[in-house]
Amino acid sequence: MASANRNEPPAGAAVSSVRHRVPFYETDAMGVVHHSNFVRYLELARIVWLDEHDLPYRKVVEQGIHYATTKVEVAYHRAARFDDVIEIFTWIEWARGASLRMAYVLRSGGATVATGATEHAAVDLEGRVRRLPRERVERLRSLALRVGV
Amino acid sequence: MASANRNEPPAGAAVSSVRHRVPFYETDAMGVVHHSNFVRYLELARIVWLDEHDLPYRKVVEQGIHYATTKVEVAYHRAARFDDVIEIFTWIEWARGASLRMAYVLRSGGATVATGATEHAAVDLEGRVRRLPRERVERLRSLALRVGV
Amino acid sequence: MASANRNEPPAGAAVSSVRHRVPFYETDAMGVVHHSNFVRYLELARIVWLDEHDLPYRKVVEQGIHYATTKVEVAYHRAARFDDVIEIFTWIEWARGASLRMAYVLRSGGATVATGATEHAAVDLEGRVRRLPRERVERLRSLALRVGV
Amino acid sequence: MASANRNEPPAGAAVSSVRHRVPFYETDAMGVVHHSNFVRYLELARIVWLDEHDLPYRKVVEQGIHYATTKVEVAYHRAARFDDVIEIFTWIEWARGASLRMAYVLRSGGATVATGATEHAAVDLEGRVRRLPRERVERLRSLALRVGV
Repeated sequence: MASANRNEPPAGAAVSSVRHRVPFYETDAMGVVHHSNFVRYLELARIVWLDEHDLPYRKVVEQGIHYATTKVEVAYHRAARFDDVIEIFTWIEWARGASLRMAYVLRSGGATVATGATEHAAVDLEGRVRRLPRERVERLRSLALRVGV
Repeated sequence: MASANRNEPPAGAAVSSVRHRVPFYETDAMGVVHHSNFVRYLELARIVWLDEHDLPYRKVVEQGIHYATTKVEVAYHRAARFDDVIEIFTWIEWARGASLRMAYVLRSGGATVATGATEHAAVDLEGRVRRLPRERVERLRSLALRVGV
Repeated sequence: MASANRNEPPAGAAVSSVRHRVPFYETDAMGVVHHSNFVRYLELARIVWLDEHDLPYRKVVEQGIHYATTKVEVAYHRAARFDDVIEIFTWIEWARGASLRMAYVLRSGGATVATGATEHAAVDLEGRVRRLPRERVERLRSLALRVGV
Repeated sequence: MASANRNEPPAGAAVSSVRHRVPFYETDAMGVVHHSNFVRYLELARIVWLDEHDLPYRKVVEQGIHYATTKVEVAYHRAARFDDVIEIFTWIEWARGASLRMAYVLRSGGATVATGATEHAAVDLEGRVRRLPRERVERLRSLALRVGV
């Protein structure tokens, strides 16, 4: 889980980011953002990454494919609070014929709030694993840090 | 919105209830349950009511119908907190050919926490309004407090 | 609930708005935004309204006050879907010594998606109702549509 | 992350479990439970484990301590759907002076739906890391699979 120790996206990665102002409804009775919401923050960034680097997710779905999440890892470094602005950075670590792995750094106020990674399997609308079209895999691989995994 | 002032289900109503122990992730930085979660609590009770009095919702969906929510009203009387057990009571107020209205009382520790009401339209899987099958409407009307609305 | 029938903010109101791109995690198995999330959308707009017209909510809290939600009403006109951009408009309907009422219109793609209203009581950090400072009430009343309620 | 490959709790572990019927509001537009909710399911089981084996979490908080989540790992094996009943099993892997690690298996209909692990740091109500009381650590360690970590 090397990716989870980074404080910033690796040099050379095709990175996207999104800024998220923490709503009150994402806080909990500890006075901080509930940790489960960070998994949602990763999705916010992933969607923007697909917009900017590959095929927008709504178009992926129109083609009859979903990227089902098969693994989530989040390491929490600092608490985030109501009204903090969190910037979530993401890039692709690898792509295979029917799966991919994204990595994330979440920063706020100049500090790393969390790091994370997610893995996804391409599935059809019934949830069966499906190989991605060749051009999709080639595009994703060309963006990945470790091309030959 | 008479229903929202009741402290208990009306006499003679076909009532269902469900107990819900408040998880930490439903609290917010005020130290109480975030008010948006009460709308979800209503759904928990509505599902049990359909199980107990009419057709379980998964079977409604198998028949190609959803009950889309068209209106929500919640009046909050007291805060609820982590680990409180809330009991949500629900009954049907009226049913028409393609719509229905449910009412709710939420109680905890002997006190009313909230009251509410929801209205729903029967829609097909593409979201178009659809009349309910006659036997569905008749069953729902037979359970409703105000049959002829 | 006159406010819930409007398709746009009333003329002369001090309106704020916020744009929200629907994340995948707010959709449900009907393929649309789950209705409970609209209650959260109202909060997004309310926070921006406080920023733009009165005291930012984080500063309200620093003064030892929360605006506890005492009532929520939402009327759903159309479904919203993943990746739709919803614009939530809000304004204040009235303010009293310890309470206020906000109204909302949610629009997307040129159509009204929902309308709503919320009421709030000023409470201290232990949840007891507290009168707002005089300058707060005067400011809120000056922004309200119906000053003398 | 050995724990994430198990299909059932290890022999000899002090296990708790909780059954959770999937509400409609936890599903997404893929027709399955949104993956972020599994992180919340882990919390449901953790709370019951504390009830049954150590100090209920509300009493931990009354003593001025929170167990802040510092790491989450979830591996998703199968989709879960509306109305599925998921049973979440949990046990403690290790405890140190100010931290602990829990592991989880989620099962439904005789199959493993997901596995996971979480790590937590004891913090005071301001979020500063704090050593746990000695009796707390000793109790947690006596329940842990790997006592001497």
